[in-house]
Amino acid sequence: MDTPANTQHLHLGALIFPGIDQFDFTGPFEVLSRLPNSTFHVIGKDTAPVRDMKGLILTPEQVLWENPPLDVLIVPGGAGQVALMEDEDVLAFIRQQANSAKIVFSVCTGALTVAAAGLLKGVRSTTHWASIHLLEPLGVIPVNQRVVIDGKFVSAAGVSSGLDGALQVAALLRGDLVAQEIQLYMQYAPKPPFHSGIPETAPAEVLASARSAGSELAETRLAVIKRIAAKKARSAPGLP
Amino acid sequence: MDTPANTQHLHLGALIFPGIDQFDFTGPFEVLSRLPNSTFHVIGKDTAPVRDMKGLILTPEQVLWENPPLDVLIVPGGAGQVALMEDEDVLAFIRQQANSAKIVFSVCTGALTVAAAGLLKGVRSTTHWASIHLLEPLGVIPVNQRVVIDGKFVSAAGVSSGLDGALQVAALLRGDLVAQEIQLYMQYAPKPPFHSGIPETAPAEVLASARSAGSELAETRLAVIKRIAAKKARSAPGLP
Repeated sequence: MDTPANTQHLHLGALIFPGIDQFDFTGPFEVLSRLPNSTFHVIGKDTAPVRDMKGLILTPEQVLWENPPLDVLIVPGGAGQVALMEDEDVLAFIRQQANSAKIVFSVCTGALTVAAAGLLKGVRSTTHWASIHLLEPLGVIPVNQRVVIDGKFVSAAGVSSGLDGALQVAALLRGDLVAQEIQLYMQYAPKPPFHSGIPETAPAEVLASARSAGSELAETRLAVIKRIAAKKARSAPGLP
Repeated sequence: MDTPANTQHLHLGALIFPGIDQFDFTGPFEVLSRLPNSTFHVIGKDTAPVRDMKGLILTPEQVLWENPPLDVLIVPGGAGQVALMEDEDVLAFIRQQANSAKIVFSVCTGALTVAAAGLLKGVRSTTHWASIHLLEPLGVIPVNQRVVIDGKFVSAAGVSSGLDGALQVAALLRGDLVAQEIQLYMQYAPKPPFHSGIPETAPAEVLASARSAGSELAETRLAVIKRIAAKKARSAPGLP
């Protein structure tokens, strides 16, 4: 992808929905709303406020088909993305925007939504650590990495990974100096007080507890993805 | 501070306002809304939605005096905090809540608001790197550190520091295992693509540009703080 000159106005848009994990969206918003000469669109199925997984109210200002073709489409995740994987309005919107976008940027389980739209077949991608096994049934090549870039598809792993992904997207769009200035503004020199951010370094007790807390949602996701995969297999040309 | 048992229900509340930096609030919300057996209150001067510095709509659900005494008061920053430093309603609210709270947690320039309420005299605190010189005129002992804890006052430096501060607050309130589980859920094993998060490591060109972009706001802040300091000096007992 060529880095467009700062003189070209950029349209970025993030899809928000009930049950989103707000941080999948607000992290990238913090970075990407600061790109010079750009407009950030907050997009919903309608303009009704939605609540995130923990109840935070977020308000979209545009609906799916209202906004201009986006240079960057941001697809966050969260428990609410399960419903989006079988929502034909949303999937058609993602497909159409992806067609002309420079970058499709998924955060966390947003990758599963993009994959359900049929866009990540054979594409290297990542997602939240607890969902990474769900990429393969959707035809995606899973990569256990914080940020993965494959062509126009940028994927960030769980939740806070969206910050690192967004800084990489900022650099792709406006160059390293702009991304670095945003990082400095945000004072993003992280110092987590524990080393528990990934399964590989988390204490066994913490990992077990987190897996247990997420097990019901993981099962629901798997059931939906099996249904989608079966449907796609039935409709694939050349198959009985 | 004693770590309360998980059986004690906790009330946490964050003050939001026009011109907030949304991430000062949404970062800590992501962590602290996940504490077991707790309620997170989003508090405004009224319940009208507010826009953050870059236009994101956030909606308070409670007004200043409606909520119960808070165990944790979170005071975010952003350009809009300048007005709060002379807003007697807000300052009185902060003083009253601080009186009974277990923790007063400021993020970014939220420390200046807490200081303007007269609560940080002789207290070690931090704030956004571009505002740290403004702590001293308010009687605060500035500490150039990502998170500072002094008694019940926890302060985080600029914007994204709120994540690290919130994880420390989570550990204080509910213990290390709970904080680590939240960190794992958020997949918070950060890998910024650049080393530009603090003035000490940012490229000179990036620092100069960031300083220039923030200079007008820095001057406004300084003027307000001089006015507050002069007013406090005039009203101090024993002075002419």
